[in-house]
Amino acid sequence: MNSIFSDRISDVPRSFIREILKVAIDSSVISFAGGLPNRELFPVRELRSAADKVFEAEGKEALQYSNSEGLEGLRQYISAWYSRKRSLSIAPDNILITNGSQQGLDLLAKTLLNDGDDVIIEEPGYLGAIQAFSVYRSVFNPVPVSDEGMDVESLKKVVSARSPKLMYAVPNFQNPSGISYCDENRYAVSKLLADTNTLLIEDDPYGDLRFTGEPKQSFKALLPEQTILLGSFSKTVVPSFRLGWIAAPGHIMEKLVIAKQASDLHTSSFVQHVMYRYLLDNDLDQHIMKIVTAYRNQCLAMIRSIDRHFPPEVTCTRPEGGMFLWVTLPAGTSSMTLFDLAIKDKVAFVPGNPFYINREHTNTLRLNFSCVDEQTIADGISRLGKAIRQLLKQ
Amino acid sequence: MNSIFSDRISDVPRSFIREILKVAIDSSVISFAGGLPNRELFPVRELRSAADKVFEAEGKEALQYSNSEGLEGLRQYISAWYSRKRSLSIAPDNILITNGSQQGLDLLAKTLLNDGDDVIIEEPGYLGAIQAFSVYRSVFNPVPVSDEGMDVESLKKVVSARSPKLMYAVPNFQNPSGISYCDENRYAVSKLLADTNTLLIEDDPYGDLRFTGEPKQSFKALLPEQTILLGSFSKTVVPSFRLGWIAAPGHIMEKLVIAKQASDLHTSSFVQHVMYRYLLDNDLDQHIMKIVTAYRNQCLAMIRSIDRHFPPEVTCTRPEGGMFLWVTLPAGTSSMTLFDLAIKDKVAFVPGNPFYINREHTNTLRLNFSCVDEQTIADGISRLGKAIRQLLKQ
Repeated sequence: MNSIFSDRISDVPRSFIREILKVAIDSSVISFAGGLPNRELFPVRELRSAADKVFEAEGKEALQYSNSEGLEGLRQYISAWYSRKRSLSIAPDNILITNGSQQGLDLLAKTLLNDGDDVIIEEPGYLGAIQAFSVYRSVFNPVPVSDEGMDVESLKKVVSARSPKLMYAVPNFQNPSGISYCDENRYAVSKLLADTNTLLIEDDPYGDLRFTGEPKQSFKALLPEQTILLGSFSKTVVPSFRLGWIAAPGHIMEKLVIAKQASDLHTSSFVQHVMYRYLLDNDLDQHIMKIVTAYRNQCLAMIRSIDRHFPPEVTCTRPEGGMFLWVTLPAGTSSMTLFDLAIKDKVAFVPGNPFYINREHTNTLRLNFSCVDEQTIADGISRLGKAIRQLLKQ
Repeated sequence: MNSIFSDRISDVPRSFIREILKVAIDSSVISFAGGLPNRELFPVRELRSAADKVFEAEGKEALQYSNSEGLEGLRQYISAWYSRKRSLSIAPDNILITNGSQQGLDLLAKTLLNDGDDVIIEEPGYLGAIQAFSVYRSVFNPVPVSDEGMDVESLKKVVSARSPKLMYAVPNFQNPSGISYCDENRYAVSKLLADTNTLLIEDDPYGDLRFTGEPKQSFKALLPEQTILLGSFSKTVVPSFRLGWIAAPGHIMEKLVIAKQASDLHTSSFVQHVMYRYLLDNDLDQHIMKIVTAYRNQCLAMIRSIDRHFPPEVTCTRPEGGMFLWVTLPAGTSSMTLFDLAIKDKVAFVPGNPFYINREHTNTLRLNFSCVDEQTIADGISRLGKAIRQLLKQ
């Protein structure tokens, strides 16, 4: 008998991170493995007040079925935010509200990809995107990223050899590596993609969480007709509402709305109302500043501890924002082996392999600094340093 | 240049209902076209209190990212509800929380269907299911349904000729027709599907809204290993939370969780917490009773007016529950032509065609009675009667 399952679902890699998180659930383990925002910074009181107002003033309206595109006011807010913060002109009609950016990836893949279409992803790249695209059976073309951004020579080869349908990039404080594309790199990538049929998905969940340095040009400004921009309130306001959005050119938007409708009719309009009320009543800039200050300190604490506890042959990225940094062990060592040693010392992280396509061993690992306090960071990195020294002695 | 879009998205029929609703938005039009629950019955005060308690007692927890399967307590509640109300034994581990039943359809199609797989649907059938399955390029095999349920002879032919992968059915108070499968029909359908590889999706959003008659056997009881049951809080508590679920055998559940994760990580855990708190603090049976009483009266009012105002050669279904009834005009007439006449008389409905596969004209139409009060129903049906008489004179 044939499998009862679709071919596509068999192609999706299981989330390795899920398995890791199960190990890390033991409360004596210090975990740098998660990808969670710091819950101490959630605006609980403000959201409570916003929810209460929604029930009071527009209860029945906010509880009824709604349109697939999303709440008009919320889309206007996002449009105005882009204009004010990024000098981007994106009309509310070009914004579709989604269940977080993850659904944005699903809807885009659903709308754009046929089986076997070529997709460029970053190496290392975001696991959620690899999963979302795998469902639609794309062929992955990984292009290395480093401190400067994407490797332009490799990109050039892939673009000319494969005419890829899509390129997926997280140019600000990338997950998993924490790197950002510098302006020169963005210009070079844009120049290379211009006059091709490759669409660029610019995923920007962390862009507002900048600790240092100047904001960079969005690809949406450099390649407006080819770029689809994904955004999210998960890292700046609250993750559990599952509110993100897609900003896309009109002809793509039209198809995305059909895909959204077929996928779940619409995103919870109740949480959209509450979010919109929260945004009207509060200063989002100020709230983000609080998050940025905390994460900056946590990131610096982690780098300080790394400099102190890790052997000099181990390197790490120096993120300008976001929630992650990336550690590279000496060539030939395995972060999977390190994981086993580290867990004995009660510290967890995510080994690099799931962020690559078909790689069983890597000498890299991801550390999350956003949801661990500074003292715990110091303790955890010290434990991890011990485990690394053990590994290098083997 | 080839289309930039996927083949699958070009296959999805646009929602005709959307277009209809645009026409019906004029407030002088009496609309039986929508499919909305009656907003006057939403438990606004109770949900407000539930939301407040969630912020108070578990704010940070309820605002953080969560697991893909859904809130444990909510899944236990649903499991206990099935046991109490339907004598069905479904473990919480076999329940996946989704963004309404619509996402259940998307996840099932994603997990089970390859391009070109055969799917049995009801004729007339639920448009949302047609859309969801179209995305995964299934081949539709419509089987007529009537007052008794599914046409067993037609079903037999399709099953033996095509070995379909899936059958999709709404056995209680079907959308669009309002019909229900009688017990004998359920036994006959089950007997026919037993020992085949066809999986049955039993979509039951209206099952609790029974006005009259005895509850019928669930296919889940008759074919437990082959049946996947979909449920929803949209019609019994609140639509805008977008909370539904899939109850499926364990080996299917495992793949559905992967699909869910790739689609949007998880359903808003905040609204799951609020729903769970609401269910703990309130008597759902009692609340449903209120809805049933109102809808029963509205349905009876509609049937009374139809009997009075429609010519005798026009027939309609007599639903035992739910939100819709189905009108059949004399053979050879078109409900699309009627729509144009009716709109001039300021009354709207959904013509039957979108509920069939590839049918431009039908002599059937759907009327919704759940969100219009009794007086308005009387006025609207009188207007529609006039339009029908005009049509028959043509």
